[in-house]
Amino acid sequence: KVIWTVLVTILGYASSLPVGEDALCTAEELAKYRIIFTGKWSQTAFPKQYPLYRPPAQWSSLLGVTHSSDYSMWKKNEYASNGVRDFAEKGEAWALMKEIEEAGEKIQSVHGIFSAPAISSGTGQTSTELEAHPRHPLVSFVVRIVPSPDWFVGIDSLNLCEGDHWMDEVSVDLFPYDAGTDSGFTFSSPNFATIPQDTVTEITCSSPSHPANSFYYPKLKILPPIAQVTMVKIKKSQLGLSAPFINLPAKSNEIIDTVS
Amino acid sequence: KVIWTVLVTILGYASSLPVGEDALCTAEELAKYRIIFTGKWSQTAFPKQYPLYRPPAQWSSLLGVTHSSDYSMWKKNEYASNGVRDFAEKGEAWALMKEIEEAGEKIQSVHGIFSAPAISSGTGQTSTELEAHPRHPLVSFVVRIVPSPDWFVGIDSLNLCEGDHWMDEVSVDLFPYDAGTDSGFTFSSPNFATIPQDTVTEITCSSPSHPANSFYYPKLKILPPIAQVTMVKIKKSQLGLSAPFINLPAKSNEIIDTVS
Repeated sequence: KVIWTVLVTILGYASSLPVGEDALCTAEELAKYRIIFTGKWSQTAFPKQYPLYRPPAQWSSLLGVTHSSDYSMWKKNEYASNGVRDFAEKGEAWALMKEIEEAGEKIQSVHGIFSAPAISSGTGQTSTELEAHPRHPLVSFVVRIVPSPDWFVGIDSLNLCEGDHWMDEVSVDLFPYDAGTDSGFTFSSPNFATIPQDTVTEITCSSPSHPANSFYYPKLKILPPIAQVTMVKIKKSQLGLSAPFINLPAKSNEIIDTVS
Repeated sequence: KVIWTVLVTILGYASSLPVGEDALCTAEELAKYRIIFTGKWSQTAFPKQYPLYRPPAQWSSLLGVTHSSDYSMWKKNEYASNGVRDFAEKGEAWALMKEIEEAGEKIQSVHGIFSAPAISSGTGQTSTELEAHPRHPLVSFVVRIVPSPDWFVGIDSLNLCEGDHWMDEVSVDLFPYDAGTDSGFTFSSPNFATIPQDTVTEITCSSPSHPANSFYYPKLKILPPIAQVTMVKIKKSQLGLSAPFINLPAKSNEIIDTVS
């Protein structure tokens, strides 16, 4: 018994591994989080080819999942699934929802799915709740960049569990990714399938290294974050009836002004 | 005690009142439902001015709430709230989410909120789960018709509780509504605020009675349903880990073909 306790303690410390690493979560209960997604895709921060019409810059629905390390929604430098391709190219969520469902049924690697409404401008906010489980403490999600060929932002396997407890708050800056399935260079490029499919790659101010690339800013060292996500643990006293939302800011515009 | 039982029984029968009427729900526990929204907005069924480009016909995110009769998300022949206006005109959910949050905090009239991802075509499907409570057995939701001036489909205060038990399955055909806040006649009309604001009205094949109206089909008696929603109670044996989805159909296209 003593040995076991020590082992758990060691593994507890080991959970401060990089995001997405497999670490034993020994928290005792389910945890609920409010997840708030903030778009920071303004014309000021990203002046090049900023989409103003048909459609103007905006964000798709957010689709996410809590899961174990046996499931992966998407991963940098790996090939996107058909579901992620449909979502990144068209904002079509059904195939991705089916993939998640199957991972839940076949290998019990999924705890739950969540989604938040789309945002009709580049700099708004959206929010929902998610539930994590000690055996499924990882969070992944995707939000499509609209318009774009197959670009998205998201999180891959962020571990909300720290050994024997759940993190109170996590905030992460988000940068654009290319799903590797459509060869367009710019926000409004026509559809042109990438054959063979490429892997998921991060889009930076210098890569793809081509002046036509909408995010190509050769004078910058790094792009400003195009979005941000914050997950805040919902305390038990806040759970239950009449607490579907915890501290939603008063107006999304005010928030945007203060953070940018 | 006998009197109380009889009273409950009477009220139980009384709950077969029209949708949205206030009836006592004496079910003992929370109920979880899978809600599946099916778009039926095809060019075949709605040939007039069917939007093919920038953007093609599609559906916004679905935003819904379970609540008591003290809350109303929207109601036919009443004025839309600012939140419903923002959502119906632009698909912007934040203000509506705030309204729901406030109704939950101030008058405890809300149990929970739910959202499902947008659909990138007129005839796809989307789905999520919702939870109802005996004191909050009513379901309301809205989905914006894209493109459109301020048109949406939805449900207003559908009661999932039948006296002492929860309904197993409910399926409802949906027809278009005008939020009364934008005076456009056609799917792609430019923005033109309705001042003073009008009430929420159903759009039919003869109303607004003007040939320019996108849904004006003078030879029809009634419009075909433009969408459908089905809510299926999730059985307890299906709850819990690895059952985030219950029987999602294999491919949305197959479903559309069989129902249309």
